[in-house]
Amino acid sequence: MKILILGVDGYLGWSLANYLADRGHNISGVDNYSRRDWVKEMGSQSATPIRRMTERLQAFREKWGKSLEFFEGDLTNFNFVLNTLKSVRPDCIVHLAEMPSAPFSMIDAEHACYTHTNNLNGTLNVLFAMRETVPHCHLQKLGTMGEYGTPDMDIPEGMFELEYRGRKDTVLFPRDPGSFYHCTKVHDTINVRFACKIWGLRSSDIMQGVVYGTRIDQFDGDERLITRFDYDESFGTCINRYCASAVTGNPLTIFGKGFQKRGFLPLRDSMQCFALSIENPPQGGEYRAMNQLANVYDVTQLADMVAGVARNLGLDVKINNFANPRKEKEEHYYNPDHQKLLDLGYKPTQDMEGVIEETLRDLLQHKARIQAKEHVIVPRIRWDGRREVVDIIK
Amino acid sequence: MKILILGVDGYLGWSLANYLADRGHNISGVDNYSRRDWVKEMGSQSATPIRRMTERLQAFREKWGKSLEFFEGDLTNFNFVLNTLKSVRPDCIVHLAEMPSAPFSMIDAEHACYTHTNNLNGTLNVLFAMRETVPHCHLQKLGTMGEYGTPDMDIPEGMFELEYRGRKDTVLFPRDPGSFYHCTKVHDTINVRFACKIWGLRSSDIMQGVVYGTRIDQFDGDERLITRFDYDESFGTCINRYCASAVTGNPLTIFGKGFQKRGFLPLRDSMQCFALSIENPPQGGEYRAMNQLANVYDVTQLADMVAGVARNLGLDVKINNFANPRKEKEEHYYNPDHQKLLDLGYKPTQDMEGVIEETLRDLLQHKARIQAKEHVIVPRIRWDGRREVVDIIK
Repeated sequence: MKILILGVDGYLGWSLANYLADRGHNISGVDNYSRRDWVKEMGSQSATPIRRMTERLQAFREKWGKSLEFFEGDLTNFNFVLNTLKSVRPDCIVHLAEMPSAPFSMIDAEHACYTHTNNLNGTLNVLFAMRETVPHCHLQKLGTMGEYGTPDMDIPEGMFELEYRGRKDTVLFPRDPGSFYHCTKVHDTINVRFACKIWGLRSSDIMQGVVYGTRIDQFDGDERLITRFDYDESFGTCINRYCASAVTGNPLTIFGKGFQKRGFLPLRDSMQCFALSIENPPQGGEYRAMNQLANVYDVTQLADMVAGVARNLGLDVKINNFANPRKEKEEHYYNPDHQKLLDLGYKPTQDMEGVIEETLRDLLQHKARIQAKEHVIVPRIRWDGRREVVDIIK
Repeated sequence: MKILILGVDGYLGWSLANYLADRGHNISGVDNYSRRDWVKEMGSQSATPIRRMTERLQAFREKWGKSLEFFEGDLTNFNFVLNTLKSVRPDCIVHLAEMPSAPFSMIDAEHACYTHTNNLNGTLNVLFAMRETVPHCHLQKLGTMGEYGTPDMDIPEGMFELEYRGRKDTVLFPRDPGSFYHCTKVHDTINVRFACKIWGLRSSDIMQGVVYGTRIDQFDGDERLITRFDYDESFGTCINRYCASAVTGNPLTIFGKGFQKRGFLPLRDSMQCFALSIENPPQGGEYRAMNQLANVYDVTQLADMVAGVARNLGLDVKINNFANPRKEKEEHYYNPDHQKLLDLGYKPTQDMEGVIEETLRDLLQHKARIQAKEHVIVPRIRWDGRREVVDIIK
């Protein structure tokens, strides 16, 4: 299959390029290196010493015996998108080119607007360019479980049959995002679903849980292939940030009471799910949403798990509860459906502690890189607009 | 009350400035004259000979004995918004500054992106600037009934109690917009509701039906005060376009089968509803949505009604069904709640034919202006991306 990965320089994008190449697909990619710049703006860097694109492409060619065709450019430029699609004519476009950080989107009006423009206009340009050049192509979009928020009820996968006052219709399950970034993901859902409806495009939306880990098997044997790993307050997600803290002797930062429940899955599982969806595309006109998670935990359970594994490796680990910089429910019901990917063949990794141990061992090798930037771990970006380090409350 | 109207140069904005001044409020306004430019881009002009802003402001001062403080600028410029709010410190901001046309947003990728940037970033800047300067101010936002689409069930007002698998929560009623413009209104709803939740801002969302008519009583006696009136395929809404067609001998253009049902209300009723909402603001932290319509008709009933009134005025009127340039249900269930504004005291205009007659009489005075641009009435902007005049099918 000809697969174009938008955001191929990122954590998921670069991993997926290698994962899919290993499965025999032909990979092209687009990036404007924004992720590297955003993380620098946070005063941070990838814990793993990722290579520049030319070196990545060289290592990719050596490993997989064929080139990754790379296009540098910005998706908010419609003509760039159009010309790239005309040139590649992909069977599937994997869209991983959005600004993915909740805190980054909450910094100020400029960052909120930037997140909207980058994410929404990028996706709109892809939709219009697909209509014009490759209307049968499958748009593999990345959603987030965070679109739903934490309603006091089960969460179906994207759509559901609503019965209201004795009448029924199939509608979008109500969204309740928790940051302006999450808002943009909801907006994308609305826009992509609309484009499928009116233009007959096909799209899968993977409503992703929180991904963690440093590795997929496809990187083995060539350190030039390793993907990025962020641990700063904006781009470091929960388990990854805990692991970076554990290896550098910083406290694991739990926000507020710490009973926030989320779905989590290892990087390998994320790759597995993407491949299943890509290789089993939806029908023309279909917008398909699938919730993607392996396990539901609250953030305190996860901190305890990371601390336990880290202590077995001889690390001295503290856990602290910090004043919550966000506005969110800290104790709530959480029970999302996640059957559709299992039906496609998804086999969740059972050994979560094994993945955490592997991650810690990888990060120990790069401890000095994290220590050089460890001031970025404790949050300062607050949902109320202030920017001051949050206090320890426990 | 100190009221700042964003988009004060528009159809609703200019009317509302006069309506609220008559009720004793102090009015400020913002505009960048985009609406005049968009309509020119469509090859059209206002049927009514609206004056330039300096003349409007002079007439306003003479009529109401006080000035309207006017700021020319663009809401996508955060510092402009911030400085304006610092200077005015309004009790209420009425946000009528969005690009409001479905066809305009569907022209191409550039217009879809522009609509997103103008509407979403404008509103985001207002929210951030409110938080910083006037957190107790009431944001009177303009939604549209088009956010809901036409689900096969009743439509509540904004939120509803959802019961799902035995558990209950109050959630946003699912949206199903029918153009990229309508998508932006849904996105705004999500963003504004989120800002109310995390920052304690207060906002009312008027989910407006289709507004029609040339006049409110407050314009009487000074033609310099008249508001704009659009009839082109992008900015002319249903009844207004029918009226412009009727006075110039063009066929009334029904799309497709013509059984699309919508809510409609005269310009006077729109003003009445805005005033009721502004003078009865919600609590801090509250996001309140109210459906605003006087009557539900299908577009064929409306064409027949306009034709009937026009024939009584001696006009020769034809009605034609054209191939539908949009993708929409042409026969459907439609039963939106609209109780909240009635509870606040809204008295719907009963004499719809009277308003149509008044509109036709006003337009007859400006017949030459419409004739000069009558080629813009029959649609060419199609949801599938083509731009060719649609065919008559009946």
